[in-house]
Amino acid sequence: MSHSNRPDNDTFLRALLRQPVEYTPVWLMRQAGRYLPEYMETRRRAGSFLELCKNPQLACEVTLQPLARFNLDAAILFSDILTVPDAMGLGLYFSEGEGPKFERPLREEWAIRDLTAPDPNVHLRYVMDAVAEIRRALANSVPLIGFSGSPWTLACYMVEGGASSDYRTVKTMLYSRPDLLHHILSVTATAVTDYLNAQIESGAQAVMIFDSWGGVLSHAAYREFSLNYMQSIIAGLKRSHDGEQVPCIVFTKGGGQWLEAIAESGCDAIGCDWTTDLGLARQRVGHRVALQGNVDPMTLFASPDKIAAEARRVLDSFGDNSMGGHVFNLGHGISQFTPPENVSALVDAVHSHSRRA
Amino acid sequence: MSHSNRPDNDTFLRALLRQPVEYTPVWLMRQAGRYLPEYMETRRRAGSFLELCKNPQLACEVTLQPLARFNLDAAILFSDILTVPDAMGLGLYFSEGEGPKFERPLREEWAIRDLTAPDPNVHLRYVMDAVAEIRRALANSVPLIGFSGSPWTLACYMVEGGASSDYRTVKTMLYSRPDLLHHILSVTATAVTDYLNAQIESGAQAVMIFDSWGGVLSHAAYREFSLNYMQSIIAGLKRSHDGEQVPCIVFTKGGGQWLEAIAESGCDAIGCDWTTDLGLARQRVGHRVALQGNVDPMTLFASPDKIAAEARRVLDSFGDNSMGGHVFNLGHGISQFTPPENVSALVDAVHSHSRRA
Repeated sequence: MSHSNRPDNDTFLRALLRQPVEYTPVWLMRQAGRYLPEYMETRRRAGSFLELCKNPQLACEVTLQPLARFNLDAAILFSDILTVPDAMGLGLYFSEGEGPKFERPLREEWAIRDLTAPDPNVHLRYVMDAVAEIRRALANSVPLIGFSGSPWTLACYMVEGGASSDYRTVKTMLYSRPDLLHHILSVTATAVTDYLNAQIESGAQAVMIFDSWGGVLSHAAYREFSLNYMQSIIAGLKRSHDGEQVPCIVFTKGGGQWLEAIAESGCDAIGCDWTTDLGLARQRVGHRVALQGNVDPMTLFASPDKIAAEARRVLDSFGDNSMGGHVFNLGHGISQFTPPENVSALVDAVHSHSRRA
Repeated sequence: MSHSNRPDNDTFLRALLRQPVEYTPVWLMRQAGRYLPEYMETRRRAGSFLELCKNPQLACEVTLQPLARFNLDAAILFSDILTVPDAMGLGLYFSEGEGPKFERPLREEWAIRDLTAPDPNVHLRYVMDAVAEIRRALANSVPLIGFSGSPWTLACYMVEGGASSDYRTVKTMLYSRPDLLHHILSVTATAVTDYLNAQIESGAQAVMIFDSWGGVLSHAAYREFSLNYMQSIIAGLKRSHDGEQVPCIVFTKGGGQWLEAIAESGCDAIGCDWTTDLGLARQRVGHRVALQGNVDPMTLFASPDKIAAEARRVLDSFGDNSMGGHVFNLGHGISQFTPPENVSALVDAVHSHSRRA
């Protein structure tokens, strides 16, 4: 069989590759998450968020949960963006109400010089096992997306030691010791390339780079400290596996001003947050790349008819998708407070309006 | 005397009005603030931040403090953006470490329908007294900037009751009860218009609208819920006073994708955060408006030579300023942790490099 790895529903992959689609595919960032009671139940069984990430069977279970509820066109590996720095030895942990933290933030020059890229098949074996497990469980129904944080975003957490409101520590390094930051980014880019390639070899059918904090940089610093490293990752990715193309999506939250530059990175698609008008974005980047997004996650707190109206507005802002190029999504991860029934309203509105259009 | 109100150093006003300047003027958002030990001393004497805002003599004192230290080209009224909702009766207070809060957040329909615009000369008398006091103390040395929060930004605080990470309450209103939000915005726009006009009559020589949270909206929602109301304020402003033009600056943090639309609002200048390249911004808006900004405030944690290099990069990104159009500033308020001596390095670099260029 020539298409043994092609999922039965490959609309998502075709839209990313700018190939004809019958309707606009949809998935939601953080679709497996705290807004689902069944997720909370599995997480309780796992013991903690991190134990859930590190248990391939349970990670597989929560990955599939939103697909059982909603008519989604892709699954995304359940994991955390900070697995790579954890495998580098920084000691990831989660403190209640404060989010992720590292036991050993990366600040001393000797520690930075000592940083090495981990072997993903050894130190991140649990992720590869989860990818393989999820692929078996999906049984070629819809594609599986693998992912990683971007080097800049990982470096923010690694240097700050956790979330930050002003990125003062990492930006002080950026402006005063750019050589040290470049070293961190360079090692991390190698680690991310290896990590995503291992995910592809384990069965990921598309990959996404989450540059969650790229938008806190100046235009000049974004190119130098974030985009350049994503570009080198993309250049090193296995872009096909088992005879199928593996598309790559870059999502820089707050990067709407830099779409032209991102489109030159070699990616197949650009994730857009909700501040970007998709019609204007399409004029700027043309058909060189697909666009993924971008309804405001807070839309999901309105009534089903208002949610459907906002979904239609976003679909119409992109325009005709019959030749592919648009994957519907939120502009950021779904809120933990979202009523699950409202997600149905969104997914169904995307499918019915885009089929009709 | 025909120019009795024109300050001795009017470089800032000329740059805003796209008139020839000898060098690029500079001031810093939040230039009177916690990074200055003398500010902390005055605040201790006042008792609290809010008492400091409400005491015209002490507000004048802290307004002048950065001008005594640095060679700044403008003063900005020391006040808070939430004085208007406080005057509307919402009960502003500051809780240690959590920032501003309202005792009575605006959520019930009856309370929203009851909202009225306060008379600034009565309910915000302390602000007008501060403006007059500062003008007397400045003795026409440099211009005084008055300011207000934008209706959308004020509404965020009014509805959320304080700062928010996701704006869930106000956005739920936006998507499900836009009529209620429009009522709040309409009353607030009237209040802000009256407030800024009263500041102009009291002596403010330029005004700035801080749309700190406009950047959390979708492009469509930004026009409908933020920009439209700023436009109506600008249309109602006294654009000249005592024979002098009073320029108006609009600053939407995170609004870099919408510069063309902001340039159509009737403002004289657009504030840009550091994510916007000033050269590209200038290509997009031409000479219709001036640009204000936009160095990353975190630059001020580097060494003086790196700070000067970054100042030069920002000046060069705008290009030739001999015909005005560029006011140098940070892209956001100065951090409370900034070493004051680094501010001197920035201000001096802006002046010397722009004079030479």
